Formats: sequence, structure tokens, C-alpha cells
Amino acid sequence: MPEPTKFELPESEIPEVWVNVLPDLPGTPSPPLHPATQEPVGPEDLAPIFPMGLIAQEVSTEPEIPIPDEVRDAYRLWRPTPLYRAHRLERALDTPAHIYYKYEGVSPAGSHKPNTAVAQAFYNKQEGVRKLATETGAGQWGSALALGCGFFDLECEVFMVGISYDQKPYRRVMMETWGATVHRSPSDLTEAGRSQAEHQSGSLGIAISEAVQVAAASEDTNYSLGSVLNHVCLHQTVIGQECLRQLELAGEYPDVVVGCVGGGSNFAGLSYPFVRRNLREGLTTRLVASEPAACPTLTRGAYRYDFGDTVGMTPLLPMYTLGHDFVPPPVHAGGLRYHGDAPSLSGLVREGVIEAKAIQQTAAFDAAVRFARVEGIIPGPEPAHALRAAFDEAEDAKQAGHERVILIGLSGHGHFDMSAYQAFLAGELSDLEFSEQDMATALERLPQAPALT
Amino acid sequence: MPEPTKFELPESEIPEVWVNVLPDLPGTPSPPLHPATQEPVGPEDLAPIFPMGLIAQEVSTEPEIPIPDEVRDAYRLWRPTPLYRAHRLERALDTPAHIYYKYEGVSPAGSHKPNTAVAQAFYNKQEGVRKLATETGAGQWGSALALGCGFFDLECEVFMVGISYDQKPYRRVMMETWGATVHRSPSDLTEAGRSQAEHQSGSLGIAISEAVQVAAASEDTNYSLGSVLNHVCLHQTVIGQECLRQLELAGEYPDVVVGCVGGGSNFAGLSYPFVRRNLREGLTTRLVASEPAACPTLTRGAYRYDFGDTVGMTPLLPMYTLGHDFVPPPVHAGGLRYHGDAPSLSGLVREGVIEAKAIQQTAAFDAAVRFARVEGIIPGPEPAHALRAAFDEAEDAKQAGHERVILIGLSGHGHFDMSAYQAFLAGELSDLEFSEQDMATALERLPQAPALT
Repeated sequence: MPEPTKFELPESEIPEVWVNVLPDLPGTPSPPLHPATQEPVGPEDLAPIFPMGLIAQEVSTEPEIPIPDEVRDAYRLWRPTPLYRAHRLERALDTPAHIYYKYEGVSPAGSHKPNTAVAQAFYNKQEGVRKLATETGAGQWGSALALGCGFFDLECEVFMVGISYDQKPYRRVMMETWGATVHRSPSDLTEAGRSQAEHQSGSLGIAISEAVQVAAASEDTNYSLGSVLNHVCLHQTVIGQECLRQLELAGEYPDVVVGCVGGGSNFAGLSYPFVRRNLREGLTTRLVASEPAACPTLTRGAYRYDFGDTVGMTPLLPMYTLGHDFVPPPVHAGGLRYHGDAPSLSGLVREGVIEAKAIQQTAAFDAAVRFARVEGIIPGPEPAHALRAAFDEAEDAKQAGHERVILIGLSGHGHFDMSAYQAFLAGELSDLEFSEQDMATALERLPQAPALT
Repeated sequence: MPEPTKFELPESEIPEVWVNVLPDLPGTPSPPLHPATQEPVGPEDLAPIFPMGLIAQEVSTEPEIPIPDEVRDAYRLWRPTPLYRAHRLERALDTPAHIYYKYEGVSPAGSHKPNTAVAQAFYNKQEGVRKLATETGAGQWGSALALGCGFFDLECEVFMVGISYDQKPYRRVMMETWGATVHRSPSDLTEAGRSQAEHQSGSLGIAISEAVQVAAASEDTNYSLGSVLNHVCLHQTVIGQECLRQLELAGEYPDVVVGCVGGGSNFAGLSYPFVRRNLREGLTTRLVASEPAACPTLTRGAYRYDFGDTVGMTPLLPMYTLGHDFVPPPVHAGGLRYHGDAPSLSGLVREGVIEAKAIQQTAAFDAAVRFARVEGIIPGPEPAHALRAAFDEAEDAKQAGHERVILIGLSGHGHFDMSAYQAFLAGELSDLEFSEQDMATALERLPQAPALT
């Protein structure tokens, strides 16, 4: 038998802790600010919509946080996820690089999102919450939360961006199959929705507002967010921890780790265990965050306080941002269309610990199709951006003539994104530019808030 | 940690042989007959459209056939597939039964079909074939063959039933992503297609005729079939062999094995290794073949010689049949809509080695939704029929108060079948009956051929 293709771990090796990167961050992190007072946000500000278990994680400085048995038990349905050595891809690229990919598409929802969904459902259930409300765009987060709520007997109410609700009925049906109630947003169920009735195609910002209102208005209903916040990034670190162990089995350590970035939780989960090694042990693994050129938050955005949502209901977060009312063009990687990035990730990019790279969508899909033809798996449009960046690393290794070890985060499959492949194969996908004018407009509209250093 | 959920094998334990059930069959198998002469079909009759490597397997009486290294290498991308202990389902059903499911949905195409697709592509490539032609209905087989051809640098040409081509564009895009060419059938590319131009919605029978004509007309093009034939069932036996090993790790042996049946290759692959144990070692594992009540080949069909295709171009096969021109009603389990069954499987049912059970589609979807809510995976409509039969076994075990061990073949996921779930959740699925009149009509139209004993 030739060298192994899959590196699998027994379920006894599902990580027992989440890696909290907050104590590793250089300098003193800037706190989130209350949108009205601009004072640092305290636990009491968050308690109406989040359980204390998650609020405590949001601000914890413990380097590791134990994973409850109930969450590990749910993880066992798909974790540990496989790490693959991409032998066939290496041959197709004719590269001396050793390419590995960590595949989160084996989760029932098809992406990394359930890693935090089941954890959030568990902590809410533990504190007597009956229902979680959330928003979803293309439906990946909504379906993950529907799954998580099902496991812990919570009701799940999802506000789905109107145009996605109309155009992507199958993600909606997936949520309903798992028992969730899905509303087209803007709905007439909330004041926020009714006030936006003229914007019938909806937006993530409106959907967030509806879900937050539902949660704030009811004692036994909470809100749940699928990225950006510290506790969400925290839960995803099972990914990178498993990679460390699996690469150990392969007898390798990565020279470069590549993942895609929307709100940042996928990239955080993949990279933070490596960030810790770099910072604490002086290792020099390069960490490359791959984002769409049409929504280039880390590569072109301003490092400033900004709202997490479009309408300005959330705390002000310290992050790279394109402006909270920036509406990204319709790139097919729906999961990467977010104006900001996780504060922890933004800080690490600011400090040069993590590199960022912007990728055009046609180049991303070209890489995805080449990958699918040799490795079989059809990647989601989001990790297609990571594949493109990884292919460039493999080409660099070939030019340099050395055995670079590349780890790719393959965050999900593309089974619900075939319309994007259809457009690409038909030559109908175009590249989209983020202009200087776009940035200037965004900067003008950033909220007045203390500067970040 | 509680009892394990997943039983995974290292890739070194991918089976090294396929299990050939032909020498185990009771009595002397009736041979396929030439459609014109009604003489037994010889290798020379099949050579224009199949490679000799597969023809040899079709008639082999060797009990085991080695799997070529190149095929095992391709299998490594998804095999061994996981066996799950369904702890959560057992609790939900409140049953003392131990329920295991073997999940083939981890293959890139999402079902068991690639197990034979890569093997068929390999043997054709080895004999210098340049292109494979095939038909597909809902698209599962076509996408598996597209994948297999991609791995072995063969062209792949798929004739897709017209109405599916129109209604299920995403399976088509999946095939194209893997590099296949997909035609809407009836097409104007073949005489068969042109002669059926008035039947624009197409049928599997027409699509088969088109693919066979393309293969027969060209020296370097062969035809490929996704079920029914001996060599196809053979290739699928990696499934059952892995189950034997995984159940050994679990310290159990099944009292009952349940799988769904369309043409029979999935059920054959799951059950034949257990059939051999039963027949050779006197074990008494019950083997339950689950089929749709609307297309009840094994439970209601006649055991007779009949054509494999609708228009009567293929050899006459000895099998249970509802008549080669029976058009099954549009049950959502597209993979189970076939008028006949594999001759080897039909013979084993005839001999009482395998039981058959007919399942209504609403009962199947009810089981599938309950399964999805506790185990996470959304099953394909085909294995939903196996789940229903397994739930009944679990209920029996509860009534009897003993620990029955149930093994379910979960042959694929339902990511491309969400419209069926949508219909079920909306209460729009109906049960369909196969009438006495349907059967009488079919019997009248069976070809004149020697009787089977």
C-alpha cells in the first residue's frame, strides 16, 4: 500500500478543550463598546440575548476551556473529521509540495458551522432557554443551528434573507427537515421586519435585526450568532487541534496554513492552535487568510470600531471593516460576504501574525473544479478561495524546488451551490472589483468612536 | 467516554477482494439469453460494448476476485466508509435493539455507486477504451461514472432522461464539474433518440438505447451499467465485507440486515458477504430487501425471463419483473424505479435466502425525517425505505423484549433530493398502489421465453 491518503482519529481523540486565543493576543485587546454610550460592554448588556455560559467564554482569558461531555457526545456524529493527503492533486499540480486538507464537509450540515451550533444549543439549553432565534443568508448557518437545536430539544426560528428564501429553497427545506421554523425576512412578525417591508429582497442586516428583536422580547428565547464573536471562534478550534494531531501521525508540520475568511470563525478554528504554537514556541508557520476580492475586508478595509450589523444595533467591535452598510456584490461564496471580521482575527492580522490575501472568484472556481476532478470532493465556493491560495503556494514551492507542507481548511462541500458551478462552467461568472470609491464611501459612514492603535 | 458511535477502519483494511456470490447460489443459474436467438449469451455477444475484464467477472465462478491496486487506490478517497452505532436513534425509538448503519454517502458522489464506477472505468481504461457512454435518470449513476471516468482519464458521455435533465439541473452540473458531457435524452445524436423525438420527456429505456448505440457504433467507446449485472453487484461487496469487520470491532453480529433495492446492486453489496456466511456456515441472519410499494418487483413481480431495458435491446435476464415496459409511477426514490432486479438477487429471493418487503413512500419519509433529527444525516429517499423496515424490526424487538442487532445499509444522502422532503413536509406526498390490473397487463407483455424453475 502506498503512503496513506486519510488520517483519521478515533472519537476518543476528539479534543477535550477549546483553544482560547485571547490570552495570546499581543497587547491589550480593545473591548467592544455599547452602541449608544460607547462604554465597554459588560455581561449585563449581553444577558438578554446570550446565556451566561457563552458570555463567560466571550471574555475569558483562560488559555483552554473544557468541552462539556454533552457537546463532545454530539461531536461524535461527525468528529474527528478526516485530514487528507492530496496525492492526486500534488501529481496534477506537478508540485513537490505536500498538500493536506482538513475536510469539515462530513458534518451533517456540510460545513464547520455545527461545531459552534451544538455548543451554543447546549449552553442555552443548560440555562433553561426554550428557543433560539437567528438569521441566515445562503442558509449554512441556519441549517447548522437547526441541527444543533434538534440535538438539544430547543426550538429554532430562522429569519432567512428574502431573496435566498426564494432562490435557495433546498437549504430552507433542510432546516425544516431538522425541525426549524423558517421565516422569509423581512417578515411581518417583528417591528424591524415591518419597518423594512419595502425592501422585499431582504438583507442579512435586516434578518439579524429581526432575530435579535425576537430574542430580546422573550424571556425564554435567545439569539445565536454563527461567526465573528470570540466564543464562536473558540468553538471552532477543534478543527486546528485535530489537524495538529493528524499531521503528527503523518510525521509533518505545516509550513503554511490556508483557509477562507468570511466573519472569520472558520479561519480562526483552523489557525489559532497554530497561532499559539507560533507565538509561544517561536515557530514560523505562515497563516494565510483567503478572502474574496469583491469583499476584501482584511486586505483593503479600515481597522476601526464598527457595528456588527447593518442597522447598528450591535456593540461596536474593533475590527477590519468595509463599513457596516457596505453591501457586498453577489459573489457566489455567500459565506464570505460580510463587511467585517472577527476582532481577534483582525488583531492578529494587524500585528502581522496572520497574512491576508484577496482572491477573484473565477480563479477560486477554477481551482475548485481542478480539485474536484482529482480529489472527488466538490468544494463549497468559500473554501474554493482557500484552494486558489494553496495552489499558488504549491506553484511557489515548485519554483523554489522545495517540499513545502501546505495545510488547507476545506470548510464544506458545494452540494447546495451547484448553481454557482453551473455559472462558472458556462463562463458566466465575472470578477468583481472593490473600488477606491467604495472604500472612501465606507470610511465616511463609519461611526464616530475611539481610534484603535 | 460512552460506547463508540463510529467504527472506522484504516485504509489498509479496504477489502482486497470482491465477494462473488455466483458459486454460492443454490442450483444452476439460468443464463442470460440472446434477445433474438434465445440462446445463452456468450462473451462475444457482449464484447462490442463491455471490456473482457468485466465480461470475465460477469460469468466467473471464482468465490473471490482480487481488487486491482489502482481501484483500491481510488477507493481510498472515501473507503472504508464508517459504520455507526445509532445510539440516539435507539433512545428515540425506545428499543432494546442495537442499531447500526453503514453510511455510503461519504463518497464524493454521495452514494454507493462509485464503488463500481471506478472499477468499470479502470477495466475499460486497461483495455484501451477512450470513452464510456451511459444513461442516468435522477443522476446518481451518471455522476458516479463521471467521477470514475475522471479518475482514469476517460471521456464520459451521459444520456440523461429529459424530464430529469430539465427538473434536476444540479446533478447535471455535478457531472459536468467532473468533466462529463451530458445530453438531454431523447437527443438527435442517435437513431434511437431521433426515433423517439415525440417522447420529449424521455425515459430510462430510451436513454439506455441511446447510450448502447453510441457504444456499439464506436470502436473505442464502451457502455457502462450501474446495477443489475453480476459484475456490478460484485463490485459493491466491499460494503458488506467492511461491515463484517466493523461489527467484529463492535463485538456483534447482525440478526437482521436491511437494505433498499432498485436494480439490486446496493442490497447485493451489503448482503452477499452475509449470504455466504449463512449458506456456508449455517448462520441465520435475516436479510431483508426493502422496495417501494409502487414498484414492488420482488414482492409482487413474476419470476421470468425479461428484457433489462424498455425497448428490448438487452439480453433476456432471469429475474423478478413487473414487465420491461412497466413505467413505475413517480415515487421520489428515483433509484428504486426499475421494473426488474438483479438475477442473482432474484434467485436468492426465490430460494428464500433473502426476504423482501414493500414500503409506502410516506412511511419511508416519516422514518427518514425522524432519523435525520436524531442522527443528523439526511438520508436519500432510497435508503429511507430501508430505514422504515429497520424501524419495524426495532419495534418488533421492543415487543419481543430482546436485543436484536440490526444492520442498515444507508446507501446515500439526500442533498439532491430536498424537493422530495419539501413535498413530504408539506403533506403533498401520496402513497401509490401497484394494482392487480397493472400486474396482469405486465404479464401479458412479457416476452416468450423458456420458463424459470
